[in-house]
Amino acid sequence: MEKIISEKIRNKAFLDKIVSAEEAASWIQDGMNLGMSGFTLFGEPKEFPRALSERGKKEKFKVNVYTGASLGPAADQAMAEAGIVNLRVPYQANPVMRKKINDGEMYYIDQHLSHMAEEIRKGTLGKIDYAIIEAAAITEDGLIIPTGSVGNSPIFVEKAENVIIEVNLTAPKAYEGIHDIYIQKDQGERGEIPIYNVSDRIGEIGIRVDPDKVRGVILSEQPDIPSPLFEPNEETQAIADHLIDFLNKEVEEGRLPISLAPLQSGVGSVANAVLKNMKDAQFRDVEVHSEVLQDGIFDLIDAGIVKFATGTALSLSKKRVDSLAEDLEKYKDKIMFRPQEISNNPEVIRRLGVISFNTALEVDIYGNVNSTHVSGTHIMNGIGGSGDFARNARITIFVTPSLAKGGKISAIVPFVSHIDHTEHDVDVIITEQGYADLRGLPPVKRAEKIIEIAHPTYRPQLRAYFEEAKAKVGGQTPHILEKAFSFHTNLKEKGTMLFEEEKVK
Amino acid sequence: MEKIISEKIRNKAFLDKIVSAEEAASWIQDGMNLGMSGFTLFGEPKEFPRALSERGKKEKFKVNVYTGASLGPAADQAMAEAGIVNLRVPYQANPVMRKKINDGEMYYIDQHLSHMAEEIRKGTLGKIDYAIIEAAAITEDGLIIPTGSVGNSPIFVEKAENVIIEVNLTAPKAYEGIHDIYIQKDQGERGEIPIYNVSDRIGEIGIRVDPDKVRGVILSEQPDIPSPLFEPNEETQAIADHLIDFLNKEVEEGRLPISLAPLQSGVGSVANAVLKNMKDAQFRDVEVHSEVLQDGIFDLIDAGIVKFATGTALSLSKKRVDSLAEDLEKYKDKIMFRPQEISNNPEVIRRLGVISFNTALEVDIYGNVNSTHVSGTHIMNGIGGSGDFARNARITIFVTPSLAKGGKISAIVPFVSHIDHTEHDVDVIITEQGYADLRGLPPVKRAEKIIEIAHPTYRPQLRAYFEEAKAKVGGQTPHILEKAFSFHTNLKEKGTMLFEEEKVK
Repeated sequence: MEKIISEKIRNKAFLDKIVSAEEAASWIQDGMNLGMSGFTLFGEPKEFPRALSERGKKEKFKVNVYTGASLGPAADQAMAEAGIVNLRVPYQANPVMRKKINDGEMYYIDQHLSHMAEEIRKGTLGKIDYAIIEAAAITEDGLIIPTGSVGNSPIFVEKAENVIIEVNLTAPKAYEGIHDIYIQKDQGERGEIPIYNVSDRIGEIGIRVDPDKVRGVILSEQPDIPSPLFEPNEETQAIADHLIDFLNKEVEEGRLPISLAPLQSGVGSVANAVLKNMKDAQFRDVEVHSEVLQDGIFDLIDAGIVKFATGTALSLSKKRVDSLAEDLEKYKDKIMFRPQEISNNPEVIRRLGVISFNTALEVDIYGNVNSTHVSGTHIMNGIGGSGDFARNARITIFVTPSLAKGGKISAIVPFVSHIDHTEHDVDVIITEQGYADLRGLPPVKRAEKIIEIAHPTYRPQLRAYFEEAKAKVGGQTPHILEKAFSFHTNLKEKGTMLFEEEKVK
Repeated sequence: MEKIISEKIRNKAFLDKIVSAEEAASWIQDGMNLGMSGFTLFGEPKEFPRALSERGKKEKFKVNVYTGASLGPAADQAMAEAGIVNLRVPYQANPVMRKKINDGEMYYIDQHLSHMAEEIRKGTLGKIDYAIIEAAAITEDGLIIPTGSVGNSPIFVEKAENVIIEVNLTAPKAYEGIHDIYIQKDQGERGEIPIYNVSDRIGEIGIRVDPDKVRGVILSEQPDIPSPLFEPNEETQAIADHLIDFLNKEVEEGRLPISLAPLQSGVGSVANAVLKNMKDAQFRDVEVHSEVLQDGIFDLIDAGIVKFATGTALSLSKKRVDSLAEDLEKYKDKIMFRPQEISNNPEVIRRLGVISFNTALEVDIYGNVNSTHVSGTHIMNGIGGSGDFARNARITIFVTPSLAKGGKISAIVPFVSHIDHTEHDVDVIITEQGYADLRGLPPVKRAEKIIEIAHPTYRPQLRAYFEEAKAKVGGQTPHILEKAFSFHTNLKEKGTMLFEEEKVK
């Protein structure tokens, strides 16, 4: 054990700071702002939030929790259950925490993931009292080596008054060397982000920390948390097929080379199906400039299709978590993780000309996209990095099955009940019915294409709305505001968005 | 005359290409894509669109017209009246053209101004058949010196199959040297935009053109077109006061220095009042990194408050148009005009940390902003550069009088009827009632602040909606979708957004 510890904590000054998670948790005071590592369940501290939540069951206090993105059950869920979170920023995905937010029992700010570091710099979320960062190791010269995500850890460490490092003794050694930590200076004092190719290394392998700020080092043996692996079904497979068709057409017509352009893919079942499909597609030497690297990316590296992939975090299934140590060694020169401010930065995304595809919750007839709020009110996860990529990508694609809840909900509606991505930012929409290429089209022509990829059951309703809006109201984006949310109100009243079930069928 | 011509066209190869506007117009064929110079009425070709419109009265053809931004009566209006425009991109502001668009007689795509050049590169708007560019001069080595705007002229010239240059013989000689023409390479092949300070010069003084592509040179003596000068009234004055108060507070609390940060200001009456107010404020050595430079900027340079200002276009009142030649000489080392892709580029805006303020048409209780569509359907002008700045600014401010149409319309509504800027992108909203600083606040707390700056007449209605939504529906952004557009439908039915006029008063 002692040997493992001295291999993991190679700087003596930090060895002297080892404390229990309980002791570290006892330092936290009511109202404090905590900046935690962690993104899509990877790289989060596990012992510290557990101990803090335990304390929260006995003592009354609340903290504000800032992270990279979503934390897992040991952190977001435990803290939510303990009722110790006042404000959560900038992303969450835990059902228990989500319920607390939607029930008004805690606050949540949904934020573009690339913006979070700027907000910390500007101080709009207050100072960071404690940064709590999971580490794979602390090097001889005191660099914190992150684990499976970088997220906002570098800015939290830089700006925090105190730092707690949670060293994960089970973290593979091979984490050392796959991170590229680059911190920007304040606005007005910074230079460019010198990434010109996906694989350009611009920073250090770990996070530099002032040792005097490090108040404690916690030891953990909690493994990384696997994400569910969504096997493609008929629907996601069809969406993936259409996306590959679209990309094939771009190649055929000379707008993209066979290596495409750097890819960003959202997380989840459709993304997974797309990545699976790409194995049999014609693309070669593809680069990935994304936010999260999923199983599928590694499979594509294995298949010789993806040659390099960067992101800010891993999100892996059980199978890949089990082979993580081995995989990190294997893919060491083909993957890299950067702070989310860099992976998601408009400057880099636009310079590289990333092709972006993300999942939509609902889409309206003009191509506005809701990524976050069910019925316009209840948050699901959050906008995440979808806005960072959608606004700045070379081609911005949103995917969604055309139906939800067994056909009771149409993903295509007259007017989305919440807008995260405006018509100005959406190029292509794909459902299992096909793809709508909206590029170069004015709104009324966009509507024609979008209605065509709605589910056939809902097309007549959408068409009727659109025709009535054009005839009675007109304008650049014809709408009948009284009926704009008629699909949603019908769902609320009758349990389905379908107006007259019999008649339409 | 001949002397003037040889001073203006100093490269002999171009002298040989002089043709009449009518002849140049005769080259245009049905279905062609035209890329024209021009932005906020400045720097547009005048003789060519006049001649083309004349031809359109006798002959049936349609063209697609791409520009920097809005053109004036001689271009957008004349072409709209002649019915020769099929598709207009990316911005317009002419009432005649606007009516044609809203009546469905021509198409319009509303686009982020910084995105237009990328769309041209990617070919989503087709190839540019003719670029028609107003020039102050053609230099010995064949550079086109733009006049009062740069807009998208460089990319049009680069990508066009044919170029027509309209040399304006009345254009001040001092235009030569105030432009900074920098063209980006394709995505994936480009470097950074090397602007680290507002005043950094990164390009050439004119637009490089392949002489073989220049099919004709037209001569024009049409002067630049003045914009109306909006004198501050009580309302715009109050908004300006609140904005200065907000900035003062930022300085007092140490978040901004006395030189602020580079400013971007929208165009119009409020912007004008703000700029007027700044003359008496404490700020010094302020830099302006904007899209459009208005009268007020020059007044602030005169007052020693602004030390440098860049944009992509001028927009001047009659008075300033009359003194233009003199002014350009005077301000030569204090102003610079760049392509709109550069002035509005996310990379530059975010690096510099611009403070952005733009006008909203309507704002909802959570801070979503409609900049473009009246009642969600009829386009006013367009999103312009507001999205480029709002998404990437250090502080994003939207201003609007709380009432319109003599009180029949509230600018603050439960749900905006069109969204151009989402809650994620809006930091501060200002009406004549005060400012709502939304930074670091979750949606329900944003709503509290926003309702407070609605007009007192409408506050009870907004409060009632918000309370009912919280009580009956809840969630992260409580809404009652059946009533979300109740203000708008009431306006349509009863001519006012006020539900019960008597009762509320």
